[in-house]
Amino acid sequence: MTSYYNNLESIGKEAMEALNSMLDREVRFDVTGMGADGTATKVPDKICEDILINRVKELDLPFNIISEEVGMVERGYRDYMLVDPLDGTYNALNGIPFYSISIATMGVEFKTLNTGFIMNLVNGDTYYSEKGHGVRKNGKAAFPSRTGSYIINIGSQPDPFTSRIIKMGGRRRILGCASLEMALVATGSADLVSYMSPESRIRNIDVAAGTAMIREAGGEVLDSDHMPLNMGLDVTLRGKFYASCNKDLLEELR
Amino acid sequence: MTSYYNNLESIGKEAMEALNSMLDREVRFDVTGMGADGTATKVPDKICEDILINRVKELDLPFNIISEEVGMVERGYRDYMLVDPLDGTYNALNGIPFYSISIATMGVEFKTLNTGFIMNLVNGDTYYSEKGHGVRKNGKAAFPSRTGSYIINIGSQPDPFTSRIIKMGGRRRILGCASLEMALVATGSADLVSYMSPESRIRNIDVAAGTAMIREAGGEVLDSDHMPLNMGLDVTLRGKFYASCNKDLLEELR
Repeated sequence: MTSYYNNLESIGKEAMEALNSMLDREVRFDVTGMGADGTATKVPDKICEDILINRVKELDLPFNIISEEVGMVERGYRDYMLVDPLDGTYNALNGIPFYSISIATMGVEFKTLNTGFIMNLVNGDTYYSEKGHGVRKNGKAAFPSRTGSYIINIGSQPDPFTSRIIKMGGRRRILGCASLEMALVATGSADLVSYMSPESRIRNIDVAAGTAMIREAGGEVLDSDHMPLNMGLDVTLRGKFYASCNKDLLEELR
Repeated sequence: MTSYYNNLESIGKEAMEALNSMLDREVRFDVTGMGADGTATKVPDKICEDILINRVKELDLPFNIISEEVGMVERGYRDYMLVDPLDGTYNALNGIPFYSISIATMGVEFKTLNTGFIMNLVNGDTYYSEKGHGVRKNGKAAFPSRTGSYIINIGSQPDPFTSRIIKMGGRRRILGCASLEMALVATGSADLVSYMSPESRIRNIDVAAGTAMIREAGGEVLDSDHMPLNMGLDVTLRGKFYASCNKDLLEELR
């Protein structure tokens, strides 16, 4: 089994340097156009995406690529690399220091997820999982734990599901970057992450790597019907999810 | 007028290196005892505090020091340095990458606040203000702006004040580090920060630097009676606050 960690880490570092140098220079972030996923693509996302696509081609990693702006890059392989080149774009553009690059590999649906790679583009922390080989944070084995903190997402008023989480006590966080929030759940920094509000509209590229990682950590990622989240290759679809590695907590919420 | 930026930046960098090296090594964080403010002081807070106190003495900065664990270090000066050596301890201990060191100078109450210094200990970003000399982020002039994002804090259910903020639309964040959240409001990364939930219990050392900074940016920091927040030297007192640089928003909430 090939580990893609070193390749993905070098891609992440290159994206992080390019992005933060641009953010430092306060370059104007104009909308460059509509992405393949139907949302406006901003310059910073495009810079990270270009770096990733070029490197995957140079290194000839054996995947077709599905990413935010370009949509599908068909490269004649059986497997797919699902990429959010900049997750938490709003945070990055507004100086809220919590955003990431998120990369997953799989067949044609989440049931066949294999690799999950998420890099915090603020400080370079890496989170990596391979099916059957555990989860690593910055190269060291990492495990979920019970912290009493819950990562939520609320719309203009808390929906019943989210209200139940809020009432559980502990600490609540709203961080605004789904992939990095999922990495925190897989590695013992939070008990749960929930994007179940009526306004939550997550895409396959937002959650593929995090789903691989949480499942590898022994946790579950469920959809709004409380079934295992299973998305495919279509980047225009939207969904909701919640995820935890704590079985009792999942049972309570189901 | 003396600028303390360079001295405070070097103290912040030293604390950041010591703290992150300790967090990397996964040193056990046992409770070392009760701090002067009545909360348990953990090793990481103590490490940052020791660095600060030693450096302030070495550099002979002209302040008595008030800090989390030691309480008052009387040094025979008229003015005070209020310090939270590690704000967001919970985040730091649990791997949530959002925590800071917060340092303010003033006379005996917030009305005489002068300098505010806040460093993001995850990536080293600095936020600095001096009364009459504006606010700087990483050494460059920074200004508030309207972003449509609101930083809140909720207890086990949203109180009426916080619910009104949630209903305003835009984006909500719960980040868990009051000083750094206030720095974001002063420098254009968020419109508002609110610690008005029944469970909010902020101390003078948590909010002194942020209050100096938001007021220098032209904003207001108000208490639960909607009056300008004015705390003194007593680190055992607790309060609530909300703050913004957007006058219309403050008017709407008052």
